Amino acid sequence: MTEDERDARAVWSALAEPGDEVAGALVQACGAARALSWVDAAIAAGAPDWAALEGPAGATGDRTRRRVSAGLARWAVRRARVEPARDREAAARVAARVVVPGDAEWPAGLDDLGVAAPFALWVRGGPAASQRAVALVGARACSAYGERVAVDLAVDLARRGWQVVSGGAYGIDAGAHRGALLGEGRTLVVLAGGVDRAYPVGNARLLEEVVHTGGAVASEVPPGAVPTRSRFLQRNRLIAASARATVVVEAAWRSGAASTAHHAARLLRPVGAVPGPVTSAASAGCHRLLRDGVAVCVTDAAEVVELAGEAGTDAVAEASAPDGPRDRLPPVARRVLDALPRRGARGADEVAVRAGTTPGEARDMLGLLELDGLVRREAAGWVVADGHEQRPG
Amino acid sequence: MTEDERDARAVWSALAEPGDEVAGALVQACGAARALSWVDAAIAAGAPDWAALEGPAGATGDRTRRRVSAGLARWAVRRARVEPARDREAAARVAARVVVPGDAEWPAGLDDLGVAAPFALWVRGGPAASQRAVALVGARACSAYGERVAVDLAVDLARRGWQVVSGGAYGIDAGAHRGALLGEGRTLVVLAGGVDRAYPVGNARLLEEVVHTGGAVASEVPPGAVPTRSRFLQRNRLIAASARATVVVEAAWRSGAASTAHHAARLLRPVGAVPGPVTSAASAGCHRLLRDGVAVCVTDAAEVVELAGEAGTDAVAEASAPDGPRDRLPPVARRVLDALPRRGARGADEVAVRAGTTPGEARDMLGLLELDGLVRREAAGWVVADGHEQRPG
Repeated sequence: MTEDERDARAVWSALAEPGDEVAGALVQACGAARALSWVDAAIAAGAPDWAALEGPAGATGDRTRRRVSAGLARWAVRRARVEPARDREAAARVAARVVVPGDAEWPAGLDDLGVAAPFALWVRGGPAASQRAVALVGARACSAYGERVAVDLAVDLARRGWQVVSGGAYGIDAGAHRGALLGEGRTLVVLAGGVDRAYPVGNARLLEEVVHTGGAVASEVPPGAVPTRSRFLQRNRLIAASARATVVVEAAWRSGAASTAHHAARLLRPVGAVPGPVTSAASAGCHRLLRDGVAVCVTDAAEVVELAGEAGTDAVAEASAPDGPRDRLPPVARRVLDALPRRGARGADEVAVRAGTTPGEARDMLGLLELDGLVRREAAGWVVADGHEQRPG
Repeated sequence: MTEDERDARAVWSALAEPGDEVAGALVQACGAARALSWVDAAIAAGAPDWAALEGPAGATGDRTRRRVSAGLARWAVRRARVEPARDREAAARVAARVVVPGDAEWPAGLDDLGVAAPFALWVRGGPAASQRAVALVGARACSAYGERVAVDLAVDLARRGWQVVSGGAYGIDAGAHRGALLGEGRTLVVLAGGVDRAYPVGNARLLEEVVHTGGAVASEVPPGAVPTRSRFLQRNRLIAASARATVVVEAAWRSGAASTAHHAARLLRPVGAVPGPVTSAASAGCHRLLRDGVAVCVTDAAEVVELAGEAGTDAVAEASAPDGPRDRLPPVARRVLDALPRRGARGADEVAVRAGTTPGEARDMLGLLELDGLVRREAAGWVVADGHEQRPG
């Protein structure tokens, strides 16, 4: 992308609110610089030049013209306030740069947002993008359980080479970023306001630590921009789109984390939810996602990797309790073994009656069990070998 | 069913091990009394009369003959031990009766087991069957959390008129039965051994209380029969088949409760699993059922009823946090509201710039917000109305 385009995208990031799809469509159709010139000309002339737009954007119908006119009215009131030089200086003060599509560190997944993709990212710290990124999100008002799970998952994901993406908020977000740092991995903080504003202020040190250990802090709005409520909601789409999968660690029935999960689902990215006690309101949103079929149940980092990873290469090894010698027996042999008394001996015929087998089957099975060291033959009959006492049920 | 059939089924319940599908097929084809006569004749003659079987059971191929011959060998070793009079006396001592298919209190769902259906149930207490029965099962070694959830669910299910079915074991089973009693509802205990044997002994008082408050204790094996390990596993199919749905409250990675859930799934009955902390091994089996898609996530009695109930009549009311006035606003109005300062006033044009709207839109929305009582007009500009302070995020 040319420097003109980069600069124009930086302007668009200040001019249009995050998620302004009319602006996104215009930039997609004309390129950022040309779209900006066209908007500036329309503002200067007090009227849009539709003919000039039809070259790059194709024929503009009534509906398109209405939407673009509404956009022009919005952008016009802000245009005079946009000062690229001031934004660049503010960025320079915190060593932030403008990252645009085509840059190596542009998270490729953002392109899946189409006309809702951000124009640019303002980035502090190490590269924003990662081939293996997973989002861990959740409630600010989390429980001690939720925070522990967030930290543990992030530590383990970081150690496995996964970048942990989250929103830098208190609670689960902070746990996820801290866990990634503890695991000596990379993490990406996507803020709703400018990257020069630590929001919330209590996480200021955490954000600095992220930047200074190779992680990245990014935002689609320029330095100085305020984190408004609608920007928080729009920010969630960036978290979902930057990661290969989104996992909700803990969330109330209605929550921003659930909105991130739904963004991921709409992008056809896998969504996971960590279950918790049904007695905890902090897990109600996770259970809702599971019940609604939006999310699959994940309980550890291996399962998160399986969710986010490519089929086959990242599959979880089938976990199972180690088989005891008893588990490897055929059902008839098990019944014969169970028909022996806990203490003392029993004859093969009596074993057959109790096990519901023929006497021949009982004798055959007792012979096999003897070879396995599970039973012994004594003068009074068959006994369970030491260390293989019976436990019913 | 005739008294002959009832008596013969009682004999079969002693003669064949639970789940003996050859016996089940024979009884299904010939009727219990005729099947028993044929077996007795074969034992007496030392050889089966295949021609006599072909009338009721149809042509018997090689494979069928081999399986029936193996069955005869099993049943022959037990036949002399079966004493119907002794079983009837033992049953009478604990006021137990024999319940067979066709009886009003025969749980109709058991018939879905086909040739694996029990021949009879030995029942103490109030009617075994219920139109609205749900199974709550889980680990013996449960956590305090699991026990609390089992009790709470059962109380609530009982109050809603559902019978709670479980296995009478320590832990979750006992919690489920106790909860049903606390909720003044009915409960069904399905034992792996005879109904005259309290197993485990620590639950003896609980079982007596069930019997004396209109609940039922049932088993497919006669009084005096020992609860062997294979009978525990077979018993699980009865729990699943007696209930309209099976819910696992807490279970380890490998567990009998999971086997009950799989029985229910094979019977195409709904299966639920209660989530718990991922840090608790006692919930690992539940999470496994959720991950494998065997169970759906259930967190309270209303969701269990929805699972077990008929579509429509028992659906859970869509739960949601109550909407605040803010939630009912269109997105543009919300952005305008968010563009007001937390303290102090702001002019409409400045609000438009911050909200990314046109000045006209900002004024329109501020007017609407004023009508809703969310903002006020002051000399210095627009302010947020008392009690509607801004919170970001």
